Amino acid sequence: MQKTNSPFNCDFYHLTMAQALFHDGKHDEDTTFELYVRKMPFKGSYLVTAGLADALEWIRDWKFTQQHVAWLKTHGLFSDGFLSMLEGARLSVDIDAIPEGSLAFPNEPILRVRGKAWQASIIESALLNILNGQSLIATKASRVVTAAGLDGQKRSVLEFGLRRAQDDGGLMPSRAAFVGGADATSNVEAGFRYGIPVKGTHAHSFIMQYGNGEEMAAFRAYAKAMPKNAVFLVDTYDTLQGVQNAVTVCRELGVTLGGVRLDSGDMAALSIKARQIMDEGGFPGAKVFASNDLDEHTIRDMVTKLGAKIDVFGVGTQLVTAADQPALGGVYKLKSVAGIPLIKLSETPEKTTVPGDTDVLRLFTEEGGKRRFLGDTIIPASANFPAEGALETALTSRHPANGESVSYPAGTRFTRLLTPVVRNGKPVNGHMEKPLTDIRQNALENVAALPDEARVFHEAWPYPTGLSEELYGLRETLIKKLRAPAPALTPKGA
Amino acid sequence: MQKTNSPFNCDFYHLTMAQALFHDGKHDEDTTFELYVRKMPFKGSYLVTAGLADALEWIRDWKFTQQHVAWLKTHGLFSDGFLSMLEGARLSVDIDAIPEGSLAFPNEPILRVRGKAWQASIIESALLNILNGQSLIATKASRVVTAAGLDGQKRSVLEFGLRRAQDDGGLMPSRAAFVGGADATSNVEAGFRYGIPVKGTHAHSFIMQYGNGEEMAAFRAYAKAMPKNAVFLVDTYDTLQGVQNAVTVCRELGVTLGGVRLDSGDMAALSIKARQIMDEGGFPGAKVFASNDLDEHTIRDMVTKLGAKIDVFGVGTQLVTAADQPALGGVYKLKSVAGIPLIKLSETPEKTTVPGDTDVLRLFTEEGGKRRFLGDTIIPASANFPAEGALETALTSRHPANGESVSYPAGTRFTRLLTPVVRNGKPVNGHMEKPLTDIRQNALENVAALPDEARVFHEAWPYPTGLSEELYGLRETLIKKLRAPAPALTPKGA
Repeated sequence: MQKTNSPFNCDFYHLTMAQALFHDGKHDEDTTFELYVRKMPFKGSYLVTAGLADALEWIRDWKFTQQHVAWLKTHGLFSDGFLSMLEGARLSVDIDAIPEGSLAFPNEPILRVRGKAWQASIIESALLNILNGQSLIATKASRVVTAAGLDGQKRSVLEFGLRRAQDDGGLMPSRAAFVGGADATSNVEAGFRYGIPVKGTHAHSFIMQYGNGEEMAAFRAYAKAMPKNAVFLVDTYDTLQGVQNAVTVCRELGVTLGGVRLDSGDMAALSIKARQIMDEGGFPGAKVFASNDLDEHTIRDMVTKLGAKIDVFGVGTQLVTAADQPALGGVYKLKSVAGIPLIKLSETPEKTTVPGDTDVLRLFTEEGGKRRFLGDTIIPASANFPAEGALETALTSRHPANGESVSYPAGTRFTRLLTPVVRNGKPVNGHMEKPLTDIRQNALENVAALPDEARVFHEAWPYPTGLSEELYGLRETLIKKLRAPAPALTPKGA
Repeated sequence: MQKTNSPFNCDFYHLTMAQALFHDGKHDEDTTFELYVRKMPFKGSYLVTAGLADALEWIRDWKFTQQHVAWLKTHGLFSDGFLSMLEGARLSVDIDAIPEGSLAFPNEPILRVRGKAWQASIIESALLNILNGQSLIATKASRVVTAAGLDGQKRSVLEFGLRRAQDDGGLMPSRAAFVGGADATSNVEAGFRYGIPVKGTHAHSFIMQYGNGEEMAAFRAYAKAMPKNAVFLVDTYDTLQGVQNAVTVCRELGVTLGGVRLDSGDMAALSIKARQIMDEGGFPGAKVFASNDLDEHTIRDMVTKLGAKIDVFGVGTQLVTAADQPALGGVYKLKSVAGIPLIKLSETPEKTTVPGDTDVLRLFTEEGGKRRFLGDTIIPASANFPAEGALETALTSRHPANGESVSYPAGTRFTRLLTPVVRNGKPVNGHMEKPLTDIRQNALENVAALPDEARVFHEAWPYPTGLSEELYGLRETLIKKLRAPAPALTPKGA
């Protein structure tokens, strides 16, 4: 999905740093970085991860050409030795990641990159760009989909955001919204490229083209041309008269009324009346669509408080720009060099990193094939747990900032979240080829396995995440060691 | 810049509407749409237009292939007749637009499209996607650049947003930020592709790789490898000690200290002390860079209230996501069919459209080669004004909602804003080939020509825009005509 899978999708400082490491003979040191999110977006408790397939495609195609190197030479900053290393280089990193459409929580590695220092560093910004953007929108979509079903009824969510998306062509938001649970998109190219179902009716301009007040003529033309998709935008003049006109036209032409779309006014109240008009008109199967600057909060109110008879929500701007938090603050931090775990302290306790290479255990129960997540524990990557299993002994999980602990008894089931996705620069295990419908299904099942309190929209209950005793101990030891001898050298800042 | 210049960059309803018009014989009617913004973003008074070159490239390449049509056929909604018209079609619209890097104000046509109804309609979403996104970020950048110079001093603004941009590869935001006045980007691909200057120093991880507390060793390595770019991130441990270390290392190695970057803490206070350390250390030419979640408001405070000694601001997330208003609400509205001006009423007076095909006169004075804009007047496209000139008689401009008028005396100079950019589907007059530096220069000069009160960040003084008497009269007549006979048919909604 990258506009070009160019190795130049990096910040300039990655190149200047790489040259400095190169001339100091440190560029090939065995180094680990991890990508994670410190704070969940939208005051929620979880993140739906998305974008892995695109990140892997970018990794696969990574290569500095002669043309790239020639352009860099024009800056007068880079040495011939460094540039010839660049041109000859192949990306040889190993990457382990949480599969796309999974959940992640604060400080959990979504992606762990291990390899030569300069290579593990130079891919930072592309990985952040792809995973921050897509995970942000997928999470927003998940919230909107949750809102639409808060009363237990199944309703559809359509993504309508192309015209106001920040991504050109709106492909990233359409893909990510589908991963997060949207049912379809209005974006035809996204449908064509990713197989996302596409939906749409007509615009106000279509009605206006028939002349002022000539709504029936426009409806007739539309119903004749689209008998299998006879959904009408009814608020160009008078909404309820529009609903009646849609019913009349469909009866007259013998077309099944697919539904009506409301795009202004008190949509909950109008939906109730529209429902009644369509039922009485002989179209109980016709649907009520609603659109107009919707988000999870307005949808929740319509569904839970206002008794709206809406079957399908069309959500655009608020979804595709994640309007209430338009950036996900994912970071990419150095975890170890030559096997030595590093820590970065901060005056803000939450910003002090978890040292060394890590992985995550997700603890769960399963009844009748249905998982319920209990909590997550970050462990050293070297810890001896299989990919899936049951705890042999009890596991204690400590909150990194306040030390509070939760204990999971022996026998508690778990999955280990990180899995190999790249080996020696090559994507492995088919994560790039996974159908988007499977990734979406994965996301929906994961969100369904959350405790209900973790799906609340504001001040959500923080899903229990902590560090294993071993990791907590290592972190405390490193903090003490660094703070003790030279307080003036305490690292701080972002 | 589009990921693909695909005709499928549209909403699905454009296709269903096109088929309905086709079967009703109305698809080829001569139709005009205009793209405009009702409300200026960020509570400001102006918009910097950007994205035209990319829009024109998309228009130029527009073509439904056999593959597109075959995919549409699978939906079972489209007739063979319609599909074969699609496949054979060439885009034959005419487009007039405000050149890129110009200013636009509420309700002014940024782009006017005239052509066959189905074609003028089907290009809506791509145009909105491109122009909304780029104009939003260019405007944000313009505000940031204004903030950085509020005390009359020249400071640089660097765009650092790749990692948290919503656009994949961050190309759109980097391009648009440069158009709006940013001096450089950290995004290497944007530099490579568009010729935007690229800048960067190093990250915290570079320091950490040298081991805890070994900042001097890291600085030495960087200074040796980058003697022409010796700018150091100094806040990994202790900021002011870091500044001193940078000075020491550069003196020791005989390298000219380029500057230091502050990325945390009380940056105004730190910058004053850093300035002093560098001056006393013999590097009065070294610059202070600052980054860390900056926007126009934090920069304004640093520059005007806190006496910060900062020379360069690195601005990332807040700029490239336009965080305080992540979507520009540009719209694309039907203005006339077969030469008959149309109007769309709304209960919200600001949403009632200006009828018919329009253009804009920008009135200005010029002293010593320096323009000062006085106000804008929207006129009928057919009005008899040259592209540039002086008023032959006085011009009255009326506010569309409240009717208040401003009068410009005969002799007042003006430019007419819309200019042909596409004829019969082909880009004309070189708007696609204009160097980005020229577009940026145009934007900077335009913003400089604004009255000072129109550059205020909040509650900005609304720059005077109105309708010519002729257009105001036409609008009033149409409103009366529509409101009188059939109030139940009053159009409303968005």
